[in-house]
Amino acid sequence: MATWEEYLDEHRDRLLSELLEFLKIPSISTETDHREDVLRAAEWLSGRMKGAGIESVRIMPTGGHPVVYGEWLHAPGKPTVLIYGHFDTQPVDPLDQWDTPPFEPVIRDGRIYGRGATDDKGNLFIPIIVAEAMLKAQGSLPVNVKFLFEGQEEIRSPQLPNFMSIHKGLLSCDLVLSTDGGQWEEDQPALVLGTRGVANVHIDVQGPGHDVHSGTYGGTIANPIHALVQIVDSMHDQDGRVTVDGFYDDVRPLTDEERELFARVPFGEAEYLNGLGANGVFGEPGFTTYERAWARPTLEVNGIGGGFQGEGHKTVLPSRAYAKISCRLVADQDPEKITDLVLAHVKRVSPPGVRVTASKSEGTAMPYLVPSTNGALRIAGSVLEDVYEKAPYYIRMGGTIPVNALFLEILRVYTIVFSFGLKDERQHSPNEFFRLSSYRRGQKAYGMLLKRLADGLQ
Amino acid sequence: MATWEEYLDEHRDRLLSELLEFLKIPSISTETDHREDVLRAAEWLSGRMKGAGIESVRIMPTGGHPVVYGEWLHAPGKPTVLIYGHFDTQPVDPLDQWDTPPFEPVIRDGRIYGRGATDDKGNLFIPIIVAEAMLKAQGSLPVNVKFLFEGQEEIRSPQLPNFMSIHKGLLSCDLVLSTDGGQWEEDQPALVLGTRGVANVHIDVQGPGHDVHSGTYGGTIANPIHALVQIVDSMHDQDGRVTVDGFYDDVRPLTDEERELFARVPFGEAEYLNGLGANGVFGEPGFTTYERAWARPTLEVNGIGGGFQGEGHKTVLPSRAYAKISCRLVADQDPEKITDLVLAHVKRVSPPGVRVTASKSEGTAMPYLVPSTNGALRIAGSVLEDVYEKAPYYIRMGGTIPVNALFLEILRVYTIVFSFGLKDERQHSPNEFFRLSSYRRGQKAYGMLLKRLADGLQ
Repeated sequence: MATWEEYLDEHRDRLLSELLEFLKIPSISTETDHREDVLRAAEWLSGRMKGAGIESVRIMPTGGHPVVYGEWLHAPGKPTVLIYGHFDTQPVDPLDQWDTPPFEPVIRDGRIYGRGATDDKGNLFIPIIVAEAMLKAQGSLPVNVKFLFEGQEEIRSPQLPNFMSIHKGLLSCDLVLSTDGGQWEEDQPALVLGTRGVANVHIDVQGPGHDVHSGTYGGTIANPIHALVQIVDSMHDQDGRVTVDGFYDDVRPLTDEERELFARVPFGEAEYLNGLGANGVFGEPGFTTYERAWARPTLEVNGIGGGFQGEGHKTVLPSRAYAKISCRLVADQDPEKITDLVLAHVKRVSPPGVRVTASKSEGTAMPYLVPSTNGALRIAGSVLEDVYEKAPYYIRMGGTIPVNALFLEILRVYTIVFSFGLKDERQHSPNEFFRLSSYRRGQKAYGMLLKRLADGLQ
Repeated sequence: MATWEEYLDEHRDRLLSELLEFLKIPSISTETDHREDVLRAAEWLSGRMKGAGIESVRIMPTGGHPVVYGEWLHAPGKPTVLIYGHFDTQPVDPLDQWDTPPFEPVIRDGRIYGRGATDDKGNLFIPIIVAEAMLKAQGSLPVNVKFLFEGQEEIRSPQLPNFMSIHKGLLSCDLVLSTDGGQWEEDQPALVLGTRGVANVHIDVQGPGHDVHSGTYGGTIANPIHALVQIVDSMHDQDGRVTVDGFYDDVRPLTDEERELFARVPFGEAEYLNGLGANGVFGEPGFTTYERAWARPTLEVNGIGGGFQGEGHKTVLPSRAYAKISCRLVADQDPEKITDLVLAHVKRVSPPGVRVTASKSEGTAMPYLVPSTNGALRIAGSVLEDVYEKAPYYIRMGGTIPVNALFLEILRVYTIVFSFGLKDERQHSPNEFFRLSSYRRGQKAYGMLLKRLADGLQ
């Protein structure tokens, strides 16, 4: 009887052609015209999961694009792992920049080209075929596995939190593995310890009822732009530290071990700045660039506007000015509390003569952090080290992945991002691709991980 | 033999119908389609001046819209007065808001309706017919008079400074009377002591080469919006005083007499704020609202922009942010010097991590101030007091009238704004009008003024 690795090897052509079939479905969740295609992708996926031997497979309604669920729960006494991914994709514009049509996937130069190849259909496909290989080759999986694949990740999963709350029991598990993420480089694995949360605030400053002549009235009434810059400037000190009262109170300090882990990740400042076209790094004193990006919260003005914005000059004292602010948050900051602190700060520093409105905006997400000592993380690290023959970096991400925090909040379990895409694979852009080498390594790694989790998570 | 007043009375219907003819010419200087019409207005005007008995009347080229010049210089030993006005008009949009067509003037309810009626054809017409009346009725004018009417005021007189410099000798005089201005209220005269100058600065702050993800990069490189608000906020203190080094150094202090004159002008704060839709007056401590608007310089941000300005939120760390600043200046501030001070300030306070460019923008104008003790001003005041049976207010204007400063700079003479329009006459707007009562009082006042100047200016 073959091993699961031999099964994957033996069936590799069929499995790959199935992935290409999956990639042909234009399951663009952002476009209502493609609503049926998202459903078709769910149907294809559910059929594929059944074919793999996964049980209780079903398409479940959410109120928006559906979820596909399946399970295999015949490993009594072993941990239960929930594997997460998404089968929806980004749109394809600009279409004329694709070398081959986005939904006619092709294999070229060791890469699978097509929309969704790396984000996330190609990655999501890996644990399914690993499960098939194990079930067909040896009749069982080493752990209990639940599969949760959603069709609305690219539109920020609006119905997923509610779905998860309703189906908490169904989804209960010891650990989540997420197929939505990536590795550091082709020969360098990485594990993500944390992602930042986000809280958004909009500040609106109203001066006169309409733009007035800055000659006639300048100097006699407050200029809302002046008031706005006074408010906004009061939120940082000269070094870039946030000066909102209490802002840093709940930040979980970096441990010595984490700082050491981050320090192992090579950082080339010149290359970093060159990539950004910036002329210097800048930020909170006492932290490295990675520490600032990954483990420290920020308050950034994403947009500001007011008064005349055309060519040349128009001498108005404007009626209104506004700023759009987002705070990136780290464990254990709470977006609601941070929003309240920012609103209180705005209230405290608002100057006279204008009407200032500050309000919470949509798009809040919790920060997420798995301790670097977490057992499952260590096991995943050992697998990556064996597969890549190199110790993984332990990093965090400056951006936000709301679903990781959601699993922690609702299911009370940590998520290990176990995914094999790379940063250069043009996620969300024309000519998206997925390396066949990553696809193969991913299969090996998922199989090894499931096996090692069987022993290690107790 | 009739007096000049009797002449004006006798010919009033003809004179008024001539003014309506003048108003029919669509001499819109802002629209190149109307270039010929501006020239037609110059031709009409030059014919009208000749008909009045004014001598050496000629249309003179400027490189842009022409100037109409004329003179009567047969009062040896008497002062020479240059009368200024403009025969071009603003555009007429939105056309559908006019009750009658803008260039088909009508008289309704004691008002002349039509584009240019008050700004400035109606006002400019007054001294011409007064000169005609005096010349026809008594054969002479009490003083030497030069007329300088331009056709490009509404496009900011781009060629006028050069024209005046070239024709300094031709235009030499003891005093300028400007027909471009107005009175305070229908029964309340006013004389303008000063207007503010202006200097414009544009600040551009460049961060990364393109907008970057504020999750991934927030906290590691400088945000150009933060840098910009830091720079802009450093330009005022909490009370609204400008903190640019040296900014107030050359400001001519208000005299006790000027403060007293300003204090005589009624100020209703509630009404003022209501008109602006603002909820408080605000400005430099130690000054009244009129003092702030008329006699103190300002630094106002007219526009600010950077990053995402659409609906909702987009978490970018923007590539660029900018501010458009204009300073209103009072005597004896020099726009060039103030610009240099602002640029030096920006340089001094620019934070690290961004590239800051600050530059002078077009539109500079000198401040203008005639001392309240000026003899011609006092004479004009006595005339207005007799005509309106009420002492005039002595005010300044917060806005900028570059031509007054130009006459002072190039011809070395003061300008008395002697004009009879009122603020509510919809200058630059649909349904512009000029009150017949003002038109009549203006004639009486101009005649009296020319007579009194004959004795008073020596």
